[in-house]
Parts: sequence; C-alpha cells; structure tokens
Amino acid sequence: MSGGLLSPDEIEAALRQIGAERYHSQHPFHKLMYQGKLNRGQLQAWALNRYYYQCRIPAKDATLIARLPTPDLRRAWRRRLHDHDGDAPDTGGIARWLRLTDGLGLDRDYVLSTTGLLPITRFAVDAYIALVRDRSILEAIGSCLTELFSPTIIAERVGGMLANYDFITADTLGYFKPRLDQAPQDAEFALAYVKEHARTPEQQQAVLDVLRTKCDILWAMLDALYIAYVEPGMIPPGAFVPSGV
Amino acid sequence: MSGGLLSPDEIEAALRQIGAERYHSQHPFHKLMYQGKLNRGQLQAWALNRYYYQCRIPAKDATLIARLPTPDLRRAWRRRLHDHDGDAPDTGGIARWLRLTDGLGLDRDYVLSTTGLLPITRFAVDAYIALVRDRSILEAIGSCLTELFSPTIIAERVGGMLANYDFITADTLGYFKPRLDQAPQDAEFALAYVKEHARTPEQQQAVLDVLRTKCDILWAMLDALYIAYVEPGMIPPGAFVPSGV
Repeated sequence: MSGGLLSPDEIEAALRQIGAERYHSQHPFHKLMYQGKLNRGQLQAWALNRYYYQCRIPAKDATLIARLPTPDLRRAWRRRLHDHDGDAPDTGGIARWLRLTDGLGLDRDYVLSTTGLLPITRFAVDAYIALVRDRSILEAIGSCLTELFSPTIIAERVGGMLANYDFITADTLGYFKPRLDQAPQDAEFALAYVKEHARTPEQQQAVLDVLRTKCDILWAMLDALYIAYVEPGMIPPGAFVPSGV
Repeated sequence: MSGGLLSPDEIEAALRQIGAERYHSQHPFHKLMYQGKLNRGQLQAWALNRYYYQCRIPAKDATLIARLPTPDLRRAWRRRLHDHDGDAPDTGGIARWLRLTDGLGLDRDYVLSTTGLLPITRFAVDAYIALVRDRSILEAIGSCLTELFSPTIIAERVGGMLANYDFITADTLGYFKPRLDQAPQDAEFALAYVKEHARTPEQQQAVLDVLRTKCDILWAMLDALYIAYVEPGMIPPGAFVPSGV
C-alpha cells in the first residue's frame, strides 16, 4: 500500500479497510450501547456529547462550501446544509437530535448550552472543523468518507437500542432513519470525488490519512464517554453528571 | 450621532445616510456607464472585474453561515447560496453574470480564470470576505446592508445601458432582474437583525463603520476601473486590455 499509485478501485478498497479497522462501530462504548448494557444516564451522556458534533456539522459543511471553487460543487455540498438545518423551523438533523435528547429526559436549554460537554468532545469536534478549514479541499472532502460506514453503525444502534431499552422509542430515534438515505448519497459523492481527484501517491496517502484522522475523532469521542461514564467513571469537573451518580 | 444609543429608527436612518453619501451609485464610473458614455471595451472591463465579486459571493455567504449559531439563522442566510449558485447547472446569479460577459464578447475561460483582473479588484473583494470571516457576526451581517441601496443602482444601470448601448440586450442583462426581488428580501432580513442586535453604542457604531467599509470596497472597485480604463487609462501590467486599445 505504501508509495505506489493506487487504481480507483484500490483506493476505495484501502478506504473501506480503514473503516473496517478504525470506525467507531468497533469501539467498546458503541458495543455496550447497542447490546443494551448502558443505563439511562450513560445514554444521556452520549446524546448530550454527540449533540455538539451534530450542531457543528453545518459549520463544517459551510466551511467547506466557502472553499469549493464552482457552483456545481457548492450545490452538491449544499444538500448537507438542508439535511442538518432542515427547510423549516424544527426540521432537519439537529432538530431531530434534540428530540432524542428530549426523549432521554435531558433539559433542552442545558443541551443547547453545551456547558455539560466533556472537554474531549469539544476538542475532537473542533479538530474536525479545523481540518476541513485548513487542509486541502481533497482532504476536507475525504474526511467525510466515514459516511461510507454509517449505515451499519446506525442499523446496529437503532436495532439494539429499540430492542434493549424500554425507555427508547422509534420516535426518539427519528434522527437516524433519514440518515440511512442521506449518508450513502453523500458518501457516494465524496467517494467519486476522491477517486477522481486523488491522482498522485501523495494525494492518495493524504486522503487515506485524513480518513484515519476522522475515525480518530469519532473514536476519541467514545473514549471520552467511556472514561467518564463507564469505567473508571472519572467525570471531569464541570461535565454532565447523570442524576443518581 | 456620536456616542449615544440610537433607536432602531435612528440606526436605520444613519445606515441609509451612509448609503446616500458613499454607495457606488455616486461614483463617476457608474454615472458614465448608465449615461451611455463608456465604450464596449470599458464595459467589458467592468463586467470582467465585477465577475470576481460575483463568483466570491457564495464564499462570503458560506463563510458567514459557518459562523451563524442556529439552524434558523443559517436557513435564512442559505437562501443567498441558492440565489447565486442556482438550483441546477447554469442557473443562479453567477451563471447569469457569465451571460453578461458572454454578451459583451469576453471569452468565458478568460473570465473564469480571473487572470485579467485589476489587482485592486482582487484586494477589495478579498477584503470583503476577510471582513465577514474576522469581524463580529453583527458586523458581518451589517456588511451586507449595501443591498438596501442596490435596487436604485440596478434600475439606473439596466435602464441606462439598454437605452444607450445598442450592443446590450435585456437578455444580456438578465442577471439584474431577479436581484430586484432578492436584494430587498435579503436587506430586510439583515436590517431587522442589526436593528435588533446592535444594542450598545459600540455595537451600533461598529455596524455603521462596517457599512462604510463595505461601501469603500465597492467604491474602490470602480476607482480601479476608472484609473485603468477611463482616465488616465493606466492599465496595470497583466490586467485585461480591451481590443483596439
């Protein structure tokens, strides 16, 4: 894999291999979640921290749109703004995520304030936005390729959570269903772009590296939750404390 | 005007006063243009340079969207991306501007390359984007308030150009008609925002200052055209040279 020029099929295979090894579907926290082994407070902590990722996604996408050179590329990427911010008040991915935090019993103003975040969550998400702002456009687009792997994790998450937690309803998990269509459409665009535009060994390695970095970002978010809320249960000062803890 | 807190009506009046004094509708180059006193090469230079402003507008808007804190604000501002990039290939403001440069006989690849720009054009437009990126959100939104004044300049420009240049058709000027609806709608949103959010004398002065700066940016673009293509006719090295000059 090192050094030579990959064919488009080989780069796709290398990207998928990174997902198989590094996507956060492999993280112990995710496994506990879909196996029904978390309590309500731990799920609240997950939804609260993940909200920060959700609410910063339009900033990430607009940051990239600001860098894209043509109306055609910007239009293609603009779809993501619609997906996350919606087309009317209380529609779109962020609004649907807030129905999840509502459903888990979190105070909405507290969620919106982001004051209870784990610091690692903030660092990781902000690193994602900085990456999209500062690296090449090719790498910025490549960083979104974790969407190639999200249908699997969503299916595990939704299926497992509905089966294993009686306080979670399909309505509460309404965020995820549209993502099963949106993410593959978005991933297809990004994958076609990197297969076409990563034309030198250096560019190809940069795309593979950035996907590893993006996987690290998602992984770190679950690491932070594990350390704080599973074991050893070290909640950093100022971060969300589930009631009863 | 200096120092005290203005009422919402007073701040609107102060903003409109800045437009009356500083908007580029007062610039000699604009007056020559709508009075029919420019030749085809001078109009080409104007359209070529103004293309750079047009093509950077979505970058400006996406830069602001990336900074806006709520889905509601981002959705409101997103309309501008649709206006300029369109909803399909060859639609939207940028595509319509290219029909203007086509109609004036400029090679499209040359226009798209932006290699013939006056350096001042690039500096001024890039200063606009930097301002939207670096100043407060209130000032970034305030910088768009030149749209309050654009219907008048568009009416003068379109009416004067159709009446005075036999090589210009209504189709060539197709860019401007939708702007007569879009600009007031956008300006109304921005004006309401600054009237609501500029709540201290310092914030109000910042909004007035940024509108002056934005007027300076537009004014500088016409200054550059005047110096290079009207009098004394000093075209900088590398910039567009009309045929016959």
